[in-house]
Amino acid sequence: MKKIVFDVMNNDNGIYKAIKGAISFKLKNPNYKIALVGNKEIIESELAKSSNLIAEDAFEIIDSKNIIHLTSSPREALKTPSSMLDAFNYLDENDYDAILSSGDSGAFTTLSMLKIKRLNNVERIAFMPILPTLIGKHTLLLDAGANIETTAEYLNNWAILANHYYKLIFNTKNNPSIGLLNIGSEEYKGSVLNKEAYKLLKENKDINFYGFIEPKDAIEGKIDIILADGQSGNVFLKTLESSFLGFGKMLKDIIKTNFLTKLGGLLLKKRLKKMKDDFDYRNVGGAYIIGLNKVVVKAHGGSDEIAFENALNQIKNILDKETFMDELKKELSNINNDKIE
Amino acid sequence: MKKIVFDVMNNDNGIYKAIKGAISFKLKNPNYKIALVGNKEIIESELAKSSNLIAEDAFEIIDSKNIIHLTSSPREALKTPSSMLDAFNYLDENDYDAILSSGDSGAFTTLSMLKIKRLNNVERIAFMPILPTLIGKHTLLLDAGANIETTAEYLNNWAILANHYYKLIFNTKNNPSIGLLNIGSEEYKGSVLNKEAYKLLKENKDINFYGFIEPKDAIEGKIDIILADGQSGNVFLKTLESSFLGFGKMLKDIIKTNFLTKLGGLLLKKRLKKMKDDFDYRNVGGAYIIGLNKVVVKAHGGSDEIAFENALNQIKNILDKETFMDELKKELSNINNDKIE
Repeated sequence: MKKIVFDVMNNDNGIYKAIKGAISFKLKNPNYKIALVGNKEIIESELAKSSNLIAEDAFEIIDSKNIIHLTSSPREALKTPSSMLDAFNYLDENDYDAILSSGDSGAFTTLSMLKIKRLNNVERIAFMPILPTLIGKHTLLLDAGANIETTAEYLNNWAILANHYYKLIFNTKNNPSIGLLNIGSEEYKGSVLNKEAYKLLKENKDINFYGFIEPKDAIEGKIDIILADGQSGNVFLKTLESSFLGFGKMLKDIIKTNFLTKLGGLLLKKRLKKMKDDFDYRNVGGAYIIGLNKVVVKAHGGSDEIAFENALNQIKNILDKETFMDELKKELSNINNDKIE
Repeated sequence: MKKIVFDVMNNDNGIYKAIKGAISFKLKNPNYKIALVGNKEIIESELAKSSNLIAEDAFEIIDSKNIIHLTSSPREALKTPSSMLDAFNYLDENDYDAILSSGDSGAFTTLSMLKIKRLNNVERIAFMPILPTLIGKHTLLLDAGANIETTAEYLNNWAILANHYYKLIFNTKNNPSIGLLNIGSEEYKGSVLNKEAYKLLKENKDINFYGFIEPKDAIEGKIDIILADGQSGNVFLKTLESSFLGFGKMLKDIIKTNFLTKLGGLLLKKRLKKMKDDFDYRNVGGAYIIGLNKVVVKAHGGSDEIAFENALNQIKNILDKETFMDELKKELSNINNDKIE
């Protein structure tokens, strides 16, 4: 039986949507053991409301009421009582397989780093969301902000990690193409960091390196994996997300103008909804924190029950592939340490 | 009489749109002297086509046929013959007031830096496009890629420069709010660079510093000036642009699906066009290269005649404010050199 710890606090929309997402998932996946970390009374009362569907003891419940709120440093997460910290401790002490939270990314990344063992040959963990593209296919982006300072060696190391993740997540045998996000696609352009990383990636025979890419190439789906330093990856991710949300809002306002525009919107409704769904982070999934010996997923801070259920499915997809971690470890063991030290 | 040098080569859409943009502008602004640098035969034949509107000798014409194409370094721009290089030389030798080109940003920035005198108290020039926001107002972004490596001192220096530019461009007396693009809005988050810059900006009494911002805040127009290191600013700009172009293309494809969706599109057409226009870089304008004692504008590589005419208008708006450069120099002279050295 696979076991997931789920921090149901720390969500922008409150605790209820997380609990509902957990219930939906559990109903379809009774063979999964799920520990809910959060306000016990609320969890129990929500479960009671669904008592016609689900047994009251369907979940492990760990009472923990404090929402995490960092004010001075990500390391505060280690010292301040919170459901997120309790979730990490429970994961460790009870040897669970995976953890999910929608709380503060900085705290979640820090606790992942400090509370979960890193895989051999991994220098730094990375924050790796799945992103939609204009041509329908999904790409992986890393690092989207787990690391503030990045080195060429980290980038090369992440390329190797993401290469393996991609093949297993998207069920393909071919090495995905990996592009390095830069201020231009020409080889002579870019920071010292990117130029150094370019050299390492070009020499790396275990991956399919495409070269430098610009945001346009990433959005148009020209490559499978977008490699970036933590700051650039974070800016890219958040700009993409905010642009699409903003565009959607403007479009909505336009449609609401008058009777005729409402009719126009109605005629386009089905297809607009599909477009929205394609780009909706709730359907695309949460972000993996990679490089660890557990499956770690960060759901979006604004997740609703669909998003939470999908994040649990994202974990399930990996856990159900029994060989995922073993294969990953095996392939990582082939890394030449000279390359990454 | 104000004088503008216009490199009409180096545009993704060829030379014709640049010439047409120049003609449109000149017809409305006969008091401007404009030197067109490009293929003389083509320029003359285009002018001949418009002979009913404009005199054949309305422009200075500098014959220069080579399009710039860098392969190894931005500094190549200095050594390789090109219309862009000729334009910069002409600007310098004939004491023109402003220069416009839509060619390679790296080459244009490098030539601006090497061929035009920097203003006193300016450490590094910056690439500063005008950006649309969701709430209609326009913001300034800098640096969007002129500098690959950035220091806290540069950021503080650019804040002072952009503060003055903003007030003069948007004709306001109030200091605009300036946000520093970061991976989070919390004060404890960010790179060493951003934390150092935060301190300097907070201490700087001559500007209105808002604090750290994320892409969402910038897109929603929460601040007036988006300050960023060259790499992050470049990624932000290009992601924003590609997202909106991509979203627009998807919408267009949806509308084209069948008769009913076409009707739907028709009912929304007027307002969709307005939204598109609001976010169209052709209407928003080119990017300023700031910190120099001439007015320097880089038009978008994909500019059409409207975009070129608008870029010329953007230059005109500054040149028409006779006191712009003098006031800027005066205000820059107040900078405490200790701060920026």
